[in-house]
Amino acid sequence: MPQATPAALNLVLIGFGHVARTLVHLLDDRRAHLQELGLPPVRIAGIATARHGCVLVPEGLEGSRAVSLVESGGSVAALGRAGDVPPRDARALLARAGSLVLEGPLVVLETTTLNVRDGEPATTHVKAALAAGAHVITANKGPIACAWSEIREAAARAHRQLLFEGVVMDGIPVFNLVRDTLPALTVVAVRGIVNTTTNYLLAALEEGRDMAPALAEMQARGIAEADASLDVDGWDAAAKAAALANVLMEARLTPADVKRTGVAHLTTTDARAALDAQCRLKLVMHVRREGGRVAASVAPERVAAGDVLAGVHGTMNALTISTDRLSDLTVIQHGGSLVETAYALVSDLVTLWRRLAPGTVSAR
Amino acid sequence: MPQATPAALNLVLIGFGHVARTLVHLLDDRRAHLQELGLPPVRIAGIATARHGCVLVPEGLEGSRAVSLVESGGSVAALGRAGDVPPRDARALLARAGSLVLEGPLVVLETTTLNVRDGEPATTHVKAALAAGAHVITANKGPIACAWSEIREAAARAHRQLLFEGVVMDGIPVFNLVRDTLPALTVVAVRGIVNTTTNYLLAALEEGRDMAPALAEMQARGIAEADASLDVDGWDAAAKAAALANVLMEARLTPADVKRTGVAHLTTTDARAALDAQCRLKLVMHVRREGGRVAASVAPERVAAGDVLAGVHGTMNALTISTDRLSDLTVIQHGGSLVETAYALVSDLVTLWRRLAPGTVSAR
Repeated sequence: MPQATPAALNLVLIGFGHVARTLVHLLDDRRAHLQELGLPPVRIAGIATARHGCVLVPEGLEGSRAVSLVESGGSVAALGRAGDVPPRDARALLARAGSLVLEGPLVVLETTTLNVRDGEPATTHVKAALAAGAHVITANKGPIACAWSEIREAAARAHRQLLFEGVVMDGIPVFNLVRDTLPALTVVAVRGIVNTTTNYLLAALEEGRDMAPALAEMQARGIAEADASLDVDGWDAAAKAAALANVLMEARLTPADVKRTGVAHLTTTDARAALDAQCRLKLVMHVRREGGRVAASVAPERVAAGDVLAGVHGTMNALTISTDRLSDLTVIQHGGSLVETAYALVSDLVTLWRRLAPGTVSAR
Repeated sequence: MPQATPAALNLVLIGFGHVARTLVHLLDDRRAHLQELGLPPVRIAGIATARHGCVLVPEGLEGSRAVSLVESGGSVAALGRAGDVPPRDARALLARAGSLVLEGPLVVLETTTLNVRDGEPATTHVKAALAAGAHVITANKGPIACAWSEIREAAARAHRQLLFEGVVMDGIPVFNLVRDTLPALTVVAVRGIVNTTTNYLLAALEEGRDMAPALAEMQARGIAEADASLDVDGWDAAAKAAALANVLMEARLTPADVKRTGVAHLTTTDARAALDAQCRLKLVMHVRREGGRVAASVAPERVAAGDVLAGVHGTMNALTISTDRLSDLTVIQHGGSLVETAYALVSDLVTLWRRLAPGTVSAR
């Protein structure tokens, strides 16, 4: 626990795509709220990008200038000081950030692209960040789905926080919900619609539209993954299932352990047949205890009209949580966009600060 | 902040009806979970009932014996020590509890019957508890709906916590959800189905059944209020609307300020007409900012088939929260019973302990 309020929360952004750039604007937009909550100022001390250079400015850099530079095809290295040799890549930047003397904690925000096979390079970034003495916030499913026990233990050994609310349903509370507001319960199952693109594709089929143009539309809106297979073949939902199983139910699953059927084989005929049977066709994720183990699956299924998941359409997501004692609880996200994902990082920053300086964050 | 873990959380139960008696069993059932979270043992030091006596045993009494005594028509005073003069009523008990030297904090749990007009006697109990140096947890809508700013200020002056998660949707997080997991946002509206009995009555009408037997059924199950008007005329939902407006949106409403239309005038014909229009008839609560003020209403309305509230049937409840920045979020409670209400008190006990001893509660 810090003895006095530090001068700043010093952020290092690993990955500077849509989510990280939206975060820059959102931090600006939420500045008064964060100040009211008692957080110290948030400073961006470093940025590592794959194709637009890297930069480390311990006193903090102007986030909006970094956004402009990248969006006009430039390099963030231009924000560094004359004479500085900019870091070559994320790992070089993290190593150097760890050696800085900063007023206030170092926080690494990992938002690189999902790699569902092994969670890399995000997992390496998370480990390097912890090794550099940083707290870690990630919106990347990879490390939580592929390497949970390893990175959880690394964070515990380093006495650093590891937060990842954005991994499932963006900033809509899921992990925070269970941990902070459903205490003294054991989660026994979760079930939900957690992939926006496939939900949209199935709705298109119901309307008699073909899948290909609907997918192109989702990609144009920045919602579908660039690699269509991640959505269409159920990999994204499987990664979320593994993350939920690992974190909420003490499992040790990876996306490959999740029984997985995608939606590519479905047609307008299937969707109409489901509608005729008073059902909706949905890609449903299940995680549940079965005997001594936790089993997870992702597959299209007919959801009956009275089921809450039947009403989850368009870009909505939903998750039903079953515990050992209460009736089920469902959380529905009515729409997803980059702001919702970026908000997950803001929400994790507040959680981080609550843990670092307990009692100093306003209860409001 | 206590310097060392106290020997116990010392509870005084004001009101010992179904909810409080269910809590006694639930505390037993959740003992291992609470211990794992780092809470000290929970001890019942006193009970005040309206018709079954009062008792104060500073070392703690056996809750299950108190339940048996009351359920067999006896008095809890029998649990006191020989020679002790039992307290006459809740106020006498609270005054005496405040003078005890206890190892650990004193926590008053207020669960007396809702009085929607002025929130009494619960508001008086809350104030007396704070004056006695106790933290207060209540599942009673009355004080939050009728006297919010007064009791909030009294708690702040006394440096005591005031928690009330059970006021809306039982133990399903609503107030905790916004405070703990949706930081740095401003709530601009809430909308929902928050009264189980009327939701059930409207479903009965849709099925062609009359309202009176359906209401009798809800009363027999202990879900409907003994005073049918509280449910049927929308008072219970109005009290919840006022509580939500006061706590989440800084309003100063009372139930009487909520524009209110009940369901008593509705018939099977109305319900069928709504169904024929592809809608469901629901008693919907709205709270929203309108110009400079917060307006709240409760009235039956036709909810379109695609609306998430259309799928909220039986004993389900739901609340949609709109903020100034994100897409809407809906929380659905799939079923309500005494366990869910009692769980709200358990959840508040954990929140209380997190605040009293920040950093000592397991983050799991």
